[in-house]
Formats: sequence, C-alpha cells, structure tokens
Amino acid sequence: MVDQRVPTSVPFPTKSLDRHTELSNLLELVTGSLLEHVAEADAANAARQSGRRNGIIPNNQAAALLPPEIVSQRLGLSLSEKPQGKNGLVELTDRLLRLSVNTWDQGFMHKLYSGTNPVGVISELILAVLNTNLHVYTVSPALSVIEKQTGRALARLFGLSGPYSGGITQPGGSASNFNSVLIARHRAMPFINEKGTSAQQLVMFTSVDSHYSLEKAARMSGIGSQGVYKIPTDSEGRMSVPALRKAILDARSSGKHPFYVNATAGTTVRGAYDPIEEIASVCKEFGLWLHLDGSLGGSAIFSGQQSWRLKGSERADSITINPHKMLGVPVTCSFLLGNDLRQFRSANSIDAGYLFHEESSKVALQDAVANNTDDTYDLAELTPQCGRKGDALKLALGWVYYGRIGYERYVDKAFDTAAYLFSLVEMHPRMEMAAVHHSVQVCFYYNPSSAEYEHKVAAKRNTAITAYISEGLPSKGFMVDYAPGPVGKFLRVVTNGTTTNETMDSMVKAIDEIGHLCIM
Amino acid sequence: MVDQRVPTSVPFPTKSLDRHTELSNLLELVTGSLLEHVAEADAANAARQSGRRNGIIPNNQAAALLPPEIVSQRLGLSLSEKPQGKNGLVELTDRLLRLSVNTWDQGFMHKLYSGTNPVGVISELILAVLNTNLHVYTVSPALSVIEKQTGRALARLFGLSGPYSGGITQPGGSASNFNSVLIARHRAMPFINEKGTSAQQLVMFTSVDSHYSLEKAARMSGIGSQGVYKIPTDSEGRMSVPALRKAILDARSSGKHPFYVNATAGTTVRGAYDPIEEIASVCKEFGLWLHLDGSLGGSAIFSGQQSWRLKGSERADSITINPHKMLGVPVTCSFLLGNDLRQFRSANSIDAGYLFHEESSKVALQDAVANNTDDTYDLAELTPQCGRKGDALKLALGWVYYGRIGYERYVDKAFDTAAYLFSLVEMHPRMEMAAVHHSVQVCFYYNPSSAEYEHKVAAKRNTAITAYISEGLPSKGFMVDYAPGPVGKFLRVVTNGTTTNETMDSMVKAIDEIGHLCIM
Repeated sequence: MVDQRVPTSVPFPTKSLDRHTELSNLLELVTGSLLEHVAEADAANAARQSGRRNGIIPNNQAAALLPPEIVSQRLGLSLSEKPQGKNGLVELTDRLLRLSVNTWDQGFMHKLYSGTNPVGVISELILAVLNTNLHVYTVSPALSVIEKQTGRALARLFGLSGPYSGGITQPGGSASNFNSVLIARHRAMPFINEKGTSAQQLVMFTSVDSHYSLEKAARMSGIGSQGVYKIPTDSEGRMSVPALRKAILDARSSGKHPFYVNATAGTTVRGAYDPIEEIASVCKEFGLWLHLDGSLGGSAIFSGQQSWRLKGSERADSITINPHKMLGVPVTCSFLLGNDLRQFRSANSIDAGYLFHEESSKVALQDAVANNTDDTYDLAELTPQCGRKGDALKLALGWVYYGRIGYERYVDKAFDTAAYLFSLVEMHPRMEMAAVHHSVQVCFYYNPSSAEYEHKVAAKRNTAITAYISEGLPSKGFMVDYAPGPVGKFLRVVTNGTTTNETMDSMVKAIDEIGHLCIM
Repeated sequence: MVDQRVPTSVPFPTKSLDRHTELSNLLELVTGSLLEHVAEADAANAARQSGRRNGIIPNNQAAALLPPEIVSQRLGLSLSEKPQGKNGLVELTDRLLRLSVNTWDQGFMHKLYSGTNPVGVISELILAVLNTNLHVYTVSPALSVIEKQTGRALARLFGLSGPYSGGITQPGGSASNFNSVLIARHRAMPFINEKGTSAQQLVMFTSVDSHYSLEKAARMSGIGSQGVYKIPTDSEGRMSVPALRKAILDARSSGKHPFYVNATAGTTVRGAYDPIEEIASVCKEFGLWLHLDGSLGGSAIFSGQQSWRLKGSERADSITINPHKMLGVPVTCSFLLGNDLRQFRSANSIDAGYLFHEESSKVALQDAVANNTDDTYDLAELTPQCGRKGDALKLALGWVYYGRIGYERYVDKAFDTAAYLFSLVEMHPRMEMAAVHHSVQVCFYYNPSSAEYEHKVAAKRNTAITAYISEGLPSKGFMVDYAPGPVGKFLRVVTNGTTTNETMDSMVKAIDEIGHLCIM
C-alpha cells in the first residue's frame, strides 16, 4: 500500500524558494495522464464518427457503474501522517482518472453539462496560479475588472442595457437563483434584513417544471415551501400565464404578498422556455420582480437562430445563466445578471470595516444611490459570499478564444444534433417521444406500454425499462439520465456542441440493443 | 488593437477531434508565463532571505495600486464577435498576470489567505480536466468518495467521531456558516422549511468580533439582523461566556427562541479563539446548536503545538474550516463538518425525481433514519447547492503530498513567524500592539497618538497614518490590510506557512520608512 513507501525527497511547503521548478516538475509528471484522458475521449469520438463498431470504442463511462465500496477500495486514498510526495500524487491522480467518467467523451449526455474544452482547462490553470479572491478589488484588480466587463457584456446580450446593468458570478445556478430571491425580497420589504420575515407571508411563483433551487431558495430565505405557488404548465411544459394571473389574484385576495415570479428559460427536464413577454406583462401589472432562470437555456442568447426563445428577456429584473452548461465553460460558472446592480448591493451589503474600507458600507451605498453611480469593484458586496473565485475569467477567456461566433456555432450544433436525434426517435419503431422537443434535451420512452395496461402498471413497466437501459448504457460507452414523466420515467438525452449525428446513430442502436432484452 | 488581428487558424469547439493536441499546445503556450509568475515570487523571496536591499526585490504587488480605469485600459479585454484564438489567449493571459497581485510573494499578507503551492495548482488542473459535478455520485464516483473520506478525516481530527460524522464542501466559509444556520434552524423548528419563519422570533448568538457571514446568514434565512445577539468579548477578543448566558436568559424571558450559538476559532481581525468548552456547556444547558466557525483558525487542528486552542471542538454540532486559508489550498476550499450528517441531509434534502433517483428523497431519508444508516453519496442532498465543484480533492491531494506532518509544519511556521513579528513590534520604538497577539495575525499601530489628544482626534490621526502606510506598502512589494480598532484603524499583518522572519524584518523596515514620512 501507498503508506509504506515514504519517498526520500519529501516536499515541504514552507522551505521551497524554488516553487516554479517544483511546479514545472509536477506539471510534467501529471500532464501526460491528463492529456491521455482527453485523448481517450478524442479516440472514442473519432471511432464513432468513422462509423466503426461500438465494440472497439474505448469505454470512458464504465466508472459510473461501480459502487462506492469498490471505488473506495480501488482508489486507496490514504490521508496519512507522512507525506507520500510525488509518487503518491502521481499514483492517486492516475487512479482518480481511471475511476472517473470521461465527460470529454460524446457518450456523456447524462446531465446539463459536458466536458470542457482546452481553453477551459487553461482558464482554470490561470486562476489556480493567480489564486486570489474576488471579494475586494485591491487583491484582484484585473480579475475584478474582467468580472465587471464580462457581466456587463452578458447583460447587454440579454438586452439589459440600463446604466447600472451588469452581472456577478455566483457558485452555481442555485446560488444565482437564491440571490435573486434575496434581492427581490429586499426590494419588496427592505426591513426584512433587519427584522426577519416574521408574518409577512411572502409569495413567489414559478412553474411546476422549474428547478428545485427555487423552492430551496424559499426554504432557505424563511419564506417556506408554502410560499411557493407552483403554476401549471401547458402541454409543452411552458408556464400557463392565465394560471399565473389567477394565482397572483388568489394570493392577494387571501391577504398574502406576491413579490417574485420566476420564468424558466430551458426547463431541467424538457428544455421548455416559458413565455417571457407575457409573464413580464403580468409582473408589470402587479409590480412583481421578474427573474429569468436561464441556467440552461440562457446560453441560446449567443445564437442568432435560437435567441428568439428569450424574447422579452430585456424586461427581466434578474437573469441566471450558467455558461458551465451549454457553453462548455468549466464547472462552476454561473452569472446573476440584472438591470440595476445597485439593487444587488443594497440587498447584500453589510458593514464590515475590516474588509470594505469605505467609511461605512451603508453610507457608501447611500452616496452611490444619491449620486446615481454604482462603480464599486468590491464585488462581494453584491453577493451572499465573502471569499469568491474568479469564475468570470473562464467565460471571458473562452469568449476571447472562440469569439461570440464560436459560441454561437457551439450552441447551434447542440440544438441541431438534438433535432437530429428527435427525428431518429420519431422514425424508430420502438421509441416514442415523452415530451415535445424544444431545445437540447430529447425525452423518450423505449417500447412504452400500450393502452391495454392500466396507468399504474404501465408507468411501473416504463420506469423499469428506462432504468434498465440507463444502467446498461455505460457498458457501451454512453451515459444517459432519466426523469419522471406522464407514464413512468423516460430517457432524457442532453446534447452539447461536440455531439455529432454519428454518435446519435450509435446511441440509438445501443439503446435498442439493451432495450430489446426487456421485450424479447 | 486585438480585434483587428483575426488569426488564420480559428479554434472551433465543435469540430475538434484532436482536443488533446490542442490542449497540449495551449499548455505549452501559457505554461512559460505562469511559471515565470511563480518564479518572480520565488526570486523576491530569495532576495529578502539573503538580506539584499528592498530596491532590487521585484515588485509583485504594484498592481494593487492601480485604479480600475487604468487596469481596464491596460488589460484591453475585448469580448469580440470574432475569435482571437491563440494570440488573443496568450496576450490576455500575459496582461492579466502583469495586472494581478502576486499572492506567491511573501510580501502578500493582506487577507487571511495566501498563494497556493505547486500541488494546489495541480489539483485545480486535474479538476478542470475531469470537469464534472458532485451533485450526484453517478457522474463523479471517485471525487464523491474522496469528498466523503476527506470530510470524515477532517471531522475525526476535530474529535467528531460519531457513526454519522463527516463533512461536505461549500463554496466558501460564508456558505458553510450559512448552511450551519439552516441545519440548526431545521433541527429547532423542522416546520419552517414548509411554513417559513413567520413569527418565530428565532435568536442566534455570536460575538461582536465574529465574521459578518453570521449576520448575513440571519438576514438571508429570514431571521433578520435583530435575531442576532452580539455578545461582547473580553479584552483579548474572546466571547464573554457570562454575557452569553445572560443574553440567552434575556431572550427567553422576552418570549424569544434561542437556537444557535456560534463560537469563533480565529476571529477575522485579532485571531482570537472563543472558549469552546465553556460555550459548549452553556449550549448543552439550554439545548442550543453549537457551531464553530473555524474558517481561519480551525486549521490549527493539524498542529500538535496549536490544537489546544480548539479544545472542546468535539462538542460542536457543526464546524467550518477553510483549508484555502491557513493551509494554502487553492481558493475556494471550505468544509462544513458535523457530528451527524443525517441532520445536514434532513435540512437540505428536497424531492427532485429528475436528479435523485431514490423513489422519493423523503422516503429515502426516512429509511435512512429508521435503519440508522446514512450512506448517500449524492452529496448535493446535504447542501443548498445543486451543481458542485470537487473542492475536496484540493485538500486531499495536498494531504497525500505533504502528509499531515507537512500541514503541521506549515501551520507551526505561520504561528512562529507571527510570534517573531510580535516581538519586533514590541521592541520597536514607533510601533504599538493594538490587540493581544493570538495566532497568525499581528495588529499594531504605527506611532499612535498619545494621551494628550482627545479620543476622536487620535482615532482620526491613527486611521490616517495606518491607511497611508497600507497604501504605500505595495510600492515596496508588500500588501498589508487594516481594520477598525479601539483608537482608529490599525495595521493587520497575516502570516502564512511560507512567510519568513527575514520578510518580517524587511516589512517592519518598509513600514517605518513610509510611516516616518507622516511624523517628520
């Protein structure tokens, strides 16, 4: 075992005055394995592209099938007293790579993100070397400027063009959505930060198909799940605007305080886009905050062909977009955008003389509002965080490298491939769409039960087949997740900008091979 | 300008089947500059060590003096339509490095973190290549196992050894502290997640010297600032236990609901450790949740010499520790540890059939409690997040590389160097300690006003001198922050495991040179 081998040359963090040589050595030691990890995915993709048989494609998803006990044993992590040095580092890295799913492989279509790209890796490497903190400008001048400029550029894409528009990064879409609730709550009832939510009975609205982070935000913020009115969707998974209107009126007439509506741009399962324009009009009528959760689908704004889906986004008060999803930026990269960042600051700012050196944050904020400026570069003031990583660089560097055009093509490719898969499913004798096809998700049943079964039995049977296929796919180099649907669970494939039609062909074939075992 | 130069070979994310070659090329293109960044800090440190004069030490902190307008102009970030490719990438990287403070330099003592180390950089590189998500086990088997094992090992260090003890990472100390409040709130009043905090009048207790994230957590969670009772500290900055006891009794007798006490291990400014044992006894007496905010000072647990400061930690219900502070792990790496992770899950779990594939999270949770097991590896269930980065790997890899012994020496060195600086200040004719010296912070005034001034005038004068010195130091290669104190603001130096006595000597000299200009 690793523990017994204590290397003669022991690294010691406090002594080294030659860390650049040590870093150079370590880079040399691990780069080969890391490049090999990417090369394996490249080889698998090339094999699929050339139409070779599944059998010879390297299986980059096999780790997904291993139970934790086995992973733990094979990993052999030893958090030991004594240093294990370079040997320990290299060996653990190699085992870790072998025991991980390979997200660079086109076969990885399991969640709403995929592998990153070379410039993504570089951006993380730069951030690691800079290793600084974006709570205050003084210790991160260039990265803070990059975050401000990238946030503003993104906000402009969505049509948020007010003098105080912009955005800040948050550690994930859930965090962005949560902050939007805090900001909206503060706008509606500024005394809550002081006095708590006691007896306010705040109510927020979001569709039944929206992400769970909205309900979690309500729980965390003291509003409670009961304060979340879940609005039904139409047959295509879009929020019903008449139902929203009725729910707001109902809440009002029962003495409650509606304050926030979330419209989803790209729902988690079906990829549906809520009708933003119509929802914005309802919000205006009732004076409610309009948040747009574009964690997944917001990235369509980069595409001339797809941005119509986001029509009306300029009327939102805040917008979440996760470039770590559709744009292939490394996990995590999420922005909360807004038309007036003074509201972000007003809700999140707190006096902390040891961190923020304005005479008092409260005074500085009042000054900013009075003078109609908001040029703070101490970005922690706009967020629930104190320490913050420079996630904005990861989008900025990709944007510089690929251009907006590059991201446009990347988004378009994901949509095109999903449309191709949709056509395959439609033509397939044993596959049936489970939901209207919208964007980069394709949701379908394999050999679903026909009408002769009663619903409960049919749902059970469909779920069983779906789970069986999902669990069988990694052995063929694919990862596809599933989700609850009208008649039991269905398969949900998520395409990305690297997925090709050939991969869709071979995946459909693999699904049929596995699924066929259920229906013989 | 960059925009006019469109490279002939345009990178395109959707086409490449040879991403390992592209990554290899990009690594080659940027590695030189990145290593140079580290080498500059190495050279500065070596120069200080050898006692050479300040003048020839490279100035790695100069960027801190530049206003945003200048940084923005010199950075020349162009988020363009067209790709700028490799040239754009390399040029932006070089400018970014030049316009950033160099946290690898010993002169960087501004905040509670410092530069990372070579293995830290490697750990971020590995995470970037793996680019996966730790919300569910299926897509991150090995990294989830590493998080569980590292969390458990850390919890054990603190004496949290129950069958369900362990820990999870959170995106920063503020997030860890916030989650602790949510978990404690849920234990005290499990119906709040459903019904909101309406009229509960929850009260939490923390010292006046604690981090602002505690008050922010109260605001966010709907408890409100008024629900935070700030307990006075003794002359050394430690929470007064009699005052805590009295505050709890007062709250109770006015019909409020005390539920949570935060004890700080290493306060932000003075580095004081609250008396954990005594606070734990009070918590037990009144049935309150005991959280230990060891964001900064929790790392002392790695040191045989220093761990006495954390005596009683095994009686805490939850503990925050940020290895990205005292241990030099890359920003961000924060753990929330607990003696019973079932409580974490119970407070944060939410049904989401599209993500968690147990029949229902609620049922699975009840099963877990009934069967006295909690072996979920779907770690998002224990946190407010959905998507999560594998921050635990960064500590695990450093631990493997350096051993616990390596971290011990690193912590000891930081404490020793701070003690050395303390002795320099004590001996210096124009310097005066502003607070009792505890751990890795040294807080002092330069030439503070004598008693002849009235307090307000003295405070103004001290603050002016302090700010003048803090702003003058970057030009001499040092960054030192300041904080509010008894008679105006004082300088706060934070040492880390790489800081040497020679650097303290030259910093004291530099402070005297700048400060002297104020008092001539």
